[in-house]
Amino acid sequence: MPGTPPTRFVYLGPEGTFAEQALRTVPAAERGTRTPARSVGEALDSVRVGEADAALVPLENSIGGAVGVTLDEMAEGEPLVITREVVLPVEFVLGARPGTTLDDIRSVAAHPQASTQCRNWLRGHLPDAVVVDVLSNGAAAGGVASGEYDAAVCAPIGAARHRLAVLADKIADHPDAVTRFALVSRPGPPPPPTGDDLTSLAVYIAHDRVGALLSVLMELAVRGVNLTRIESRPTGEALGRYVFFLDCTGHVADVRLGEALQGLRRVCADVRFLGSYPRHRFSGAAGDRPVPAPAGLSDADYADAAAWLARLRAGAQP
Amino acid sequence: MPGTPPTRFVYLGPEGTFAEQALRTVPAAERGTRTPARSVGEALDSVRVGEADAALVPLENSIGGAVGVTLDEMAEGEPLVITREVVLPVEFVLGARPGTTLDDIRSVAAHPQASTQCRNWLRGHLPDAVVVDVLSNGAAAGGVASGEYDAAVCAPIGAARHRLAVLADKIADHPDAVTRFALVSRPGPPPPPTGDDLTSLAVYIAHDRVGALLSVLMELAVRGVNLTRIESRPTGEALGRYVFFLDCTGHVADVRLGEALQGLRRVCADVRFLGSYPRHRFSGAAGDRPVPAPAGLSDADYADAAAWLARLRAGAQP
Amino acid sequence: MPGTPPTRFVYLGPEGTFAEQALRTVPAAERGTRTPARSVGEALDSVRVGEADAALVPLENSIGGAVGVTLDEMAEGEPLVITREVVLPVEFVLGARPGTTLDDIRSVAAHPQASTQCRNWLRGHLPDAVVVDVLSNGAAAGGVASGEYDAAVCAPIGAARHRLAVLADKIADHPDAVTRFALVSRPGPPPPPTGDDLTSLAVYIAHDRVGALLSVLMELAVRGVNLTRIESRPTGEALGRYVFFLDCTGHVADVRLGEALQGLRRVCADVRFLGSYPRHRFSGAAGDRPVPAPAGLSDADYADAAAWLARLRAGAQP
Amino acid sequence: MPGTPPTRFVYLGPEGTFAEQALRTVPAAERGTRTPARSVGEALDSVRVGEADAALVPLENSIGGAVGVTLDEMAEGEPLVITREVVLPVEFVLGARPGTTLDDIRSVAAHPQASTQCRNWLRGHLPDAVVVDVLSNGAAAGGVASGEYDAAVCAPIGAARHRLAVLADKIADHPDAVTRFALVSRPGPPPPPTGDDLTSLAVYIAHDRVGALLSVLMELAVRGVNLTRIESRPTGEALGRYVFFLDCTGHVADVRLGEALQGLRRVCADVRFLGSYPRHRFSGAAGDRPVPAPAGLSDADYADAAAWLARLRAGAQP
Repeated sequence: MPGTPPTRFVYLGPEGTFAEQALRTVPAAERGTRTPARSVGEALDSVRVGEADAALVPLENSIGGAVGVTLDEMAEGEPLVITREVVLPVEFVLGARPGTTLDDIRSVAAHPQASTQCRNWLRGHLPDAVVVDVLSNGAAAGGVASGEYDAAVCAPIGAARHRLAVLADKIADHPDAVTRFALVSRPGPPPPPTGDDLTSLAVYIAHDRVGALLSVLMELAVRGVNLTRIESRPTGEALGRYVFFLDCTGHVADVRLGEALQGLRRVCADVRFLGSYPRHRFSGAAGDRPVPAPAGLSDADYADAAAWLARLRAGAQP
Repeated sequence: MPGTPPTRFVYLGPEGTFAEQALRTVPAAERGTRTPARSVGEALDSVRVGEADAALVPLENSIGGAVGVTLDEMAEGEPLVITREVVLPVEFVLGARPGTTLDDIRSVAAHPQASTQCRNWLRGHLPDAVVVDVLSNGAAAGGVASGEYDAAVCAPIGAARHRLAVLADKIADHPDAVTRFALVSRPGPPPPPTGDDLTSLAVYIAHDRVGALLSVLMELAVRGVNLTRIESRPTGEALGRYVFFLDCTGHVADVRLGEALQGLRRVCADVRFLGSYPRHRFSGAAGDRPVPAPAGLSDADYADAAAWLARLRAGAQP
Repeated sequence: MPGTPPTRFVYLGPEGTFAEQALRTVPAAERGTRTPARSVGEALDSVRVGEADAALVPLENSIGGAVGVTLDEMAEGEPLVITREVVLPVEFVLGARPGTTLDDIRSVAAHPQASTQCRNWLRGHLPDAVVVDVLSNGAAAGGVASGEYDAAVCAPIGAARHRLAVLADKIADHPDAVTRFALVSRPGPPPPPTGDDLTSLAVYIAHDRVGALLSVLMELAVRGVNLTRIESRPTGEALGRYVFFLDCTGHVADVRLGEALQGLRRVCADVRFLGSYPRHRFSGAAGDRPVPAPAGLSDADYADAAAWLARLRAGAQP
Repeated sequence: MPGTPPTRFVYLGPEGTFAEQALRTVPAAERGTRTPARSVGEALDSVRVGEADAALVPLENSIGGAVGVTLDEMAEGEPLVITREVVLPVEFVLGARPGTTLDDIRSVAAHPQASTQCRNWLRGHLPDAVVVDVLSNGAAAGGVASGEYDAAVCAPIGAARHRLAVLADKIADHPDAVTRFALVSRPGPPPPPTGDDLTSLAVYIAHDRVGALLSVLMELAVRGVNLTRIESRPTGEALGRYVFFLDCTGHVADVRLGEALQGLRRVCADVRFLGSYPRHRFSGAAGDRPVPAPAGLSDADYADAAAWLARLRAGAQP
């Protein structure tokens, strides 16, 4: 039922990973049900078939290499839309059973990309420990709890869930790294504009020519729409057809973004709208401030120009 | 009274020049009054104050160096709009009193730019004749009729009006040269779109930067609007402020030109609309064919994109 | 002989016009011969055939509507180059025989464009005088000296040459209007760069498409080259082939302008180089300051980038 | 030693995955040593420290979610360059111990992204089997060989290495999907141009503005350089600073790509060159044909334009 807040949530599992931690920052999810899914595709399909109301899946950067999968899954099949983004600092911790000290650690369980992100720390503090690949951050914590490994590189929530002691926190080599997640639903009226929104698109162009991409960017630039992300992927169907995933500043309800969207619709082979949603704001933190509309591109400027055109068409100058 | 066809016409005089010849290709002018004006400014002002309904003045290329004057006069003062363009081949003739032969000719009267355009012919056929500057093509013909000069470089209409014999025709060095005239009225509903129209604009940008002009062209290019002419002029008021005179394909009533106009209105310091009018068609001749809307830029494409956007905003995905 | 300073000068006559006044601001011309020519074409041809070393002709704005003629004459025939620009304030005066007062004036001789530029003044101060068209500002002054007219709208130099009293000065409606002249020679090494130069070009593109003009502007923009003037003209040869006259900031010896010129050479149907020369500086006056090279576009930046590329090609990182 | 062909190869392990299969298409690798690495970072570091001569790692699309990791590892630390790309069809097979039939299969081991890519096939042919996540395609095959699972989704090389029978081949949902790998070495002279090369770059811009990205694309477009891939990633260091990974047509030794690279060097915060290498050609297959240089952008056109500029600077027209 449109307008009904979601109550049944799925997320990319297993339990105890960053995805679960991200979901728990969503107030409605705290009150609703939260079910792990085995894959991004499974999570999204459960929304498509109506078994869940919303899915929390990773979009960018990240711990599971899931970016490409999420984009591909969003671009194909029944349409879905992003209604919210959640940006989490990547705060890896070293978890171990209570009583363990660094000197005791002979084996460290970690997802391969987690150990990659903490490589310098592991080399410096545990040069002699064996790093064992496991399938997820949650599985790493679980394997320590069950006694299979001495320590785990995992998310804080994974350590907490498996009652591990945190021997060290913020062990990632880049202290400012973040992971970006999306909350995804079936199509419906987008959340209202906040003045600081993002819109995600999948844009298909027939050829991989710089001219074609220039055309796309010009459609955005002349309306003062900024890109915050662009990623090209070959479509699975055939070589030589490309899809670009774009994140733009603005909301589908904004006049200038609406005009830009219409422009893309006209010049591209296809455009799939992937949602308008508030940009994630870090509480108290610095970072990207919302960018005000450039001179001449506010909704008021659009209204003024439309009124002027109407006068011209009626023959009333100026 | 809006919608009343014009009956009182002025044109850049004197009588017997290309401007009168151009005016006589306008059917309504054949039935109305036709009064010569002493200057472009005088012709336009007589329309502004209501003494005339329409003025025929030169726009481009041409015999009187009047282009800049016309543009400046259109860009300042009370707004006026072009309702029709007339493109005349520049067909200079050599006129003389009946009975004169080439060998008799010792003096040739010509407007300086007319003699310039016929320089090769004059050198080849009348190497020993003295070319005397006069103020207009009409004055050249008149001076021959009164016996002041032996021959005149003039328009066919000038020879006819002064009952001169045409000793040679098409004597201009470039046989395809044309002059372009505009029929100008007070603002009113533009003539209806024909599918092959032009729109003239005066566009002010604050600085002479290539970036500013690029912005203007991008506003046009993303809507598939072509330029057929561009001319920059420093504004009389101060150095460093430029006005661009643009002729674009399309009609103010077209969706895509309307969107482009709104874009210019927003990004430019000022835009003055100078009229939408049918492009001149040469009967039977080759030349610039009308350019169909590029893929994705027809009115139907605009309507489709607008409907798509409306569905997105309503939350209904296709 | 290349390098020899010019000593024989021609200018667009007749004597006593702004062109002569402009020429006399050129030091070498003060020491050389100064001959009036009957037309821009005649002035340029006398340089082409070697009868003169340099010609002073009007380029822009201006009193004789000669702009188009000059451009066309420069774009065709044997190549010529601009070596200097002269920008003169348009300071019209009202000249009369000594002893005449405003109340005595019944007839005013003026070139049509001169009377146009002083229209408001004439209406306000001589509402009842008849304005008589003459062929040049110099002819207006001469006609007053000979007693044919009571007063003349002319250049200060015209009043002085014909010993007229100046009844009023600065009578043009736009006090800041200027006329721009070019000093033109046969091709030779350009004057050395001064750090504040202009380069003039005639650029041919095959079609009047906005895309083609966009390509031209992009070649300039990516090298940070600014336009100070652009004018399109249909070529006399045929419809649908356009030539653009561009004035750009920079000197042909500058690295970035050189790269831009090569780019134009590659993408345009044809490019004719019309000269690099110092920008006119108004003594003490405000106006357009020279624009420093944008970030990354100085000659030093070009040298750095070239060295970096050489290292890459040699396989030496970074 | 520069120029010495590589003999010691590493690849993203474990054994029996697509990366090993890709490496074996490289002739030198067939004759040299081939060592699996536990991660992309480990593979690249072994080249950086000189323990290996070249590393084969996944770049795009792909089975391990490793794209982002490879890009990040290439963009940081000691510079490395790509010397060759290998594009492999993603040909998943279902492997089982000899004698097994489809009806016998209760459990299928698969890397999560492999099972995602074969989802439709698995639903259609093994709707009741349990899919068990494992860490790699090689591990899936190994787990079947050891009797832990009934069947594996794996690469043909994985089935062969573990002596599994192939019960079904080409089971991926998109039959044309490919994975793209890079062979990476320490910096040295690039492989010679072949006329159909790619160049990879990491380009840093200060802000995520569409204007900044437009500037980058314009540097490429004016030199006729096409993009075949673009991907933006936030840099790990801080929010708001972006790195774009670009694959361009052309070779660093080409004149026009060289000019484009210099342009990027000047306008971007930083550019890291990631190698020029022959584009992968599918034997006999259709696909992207090499794109000839656009009109005016061949090396010969560049040489012509440079000679023309030299003539202009010397004062010798035309």
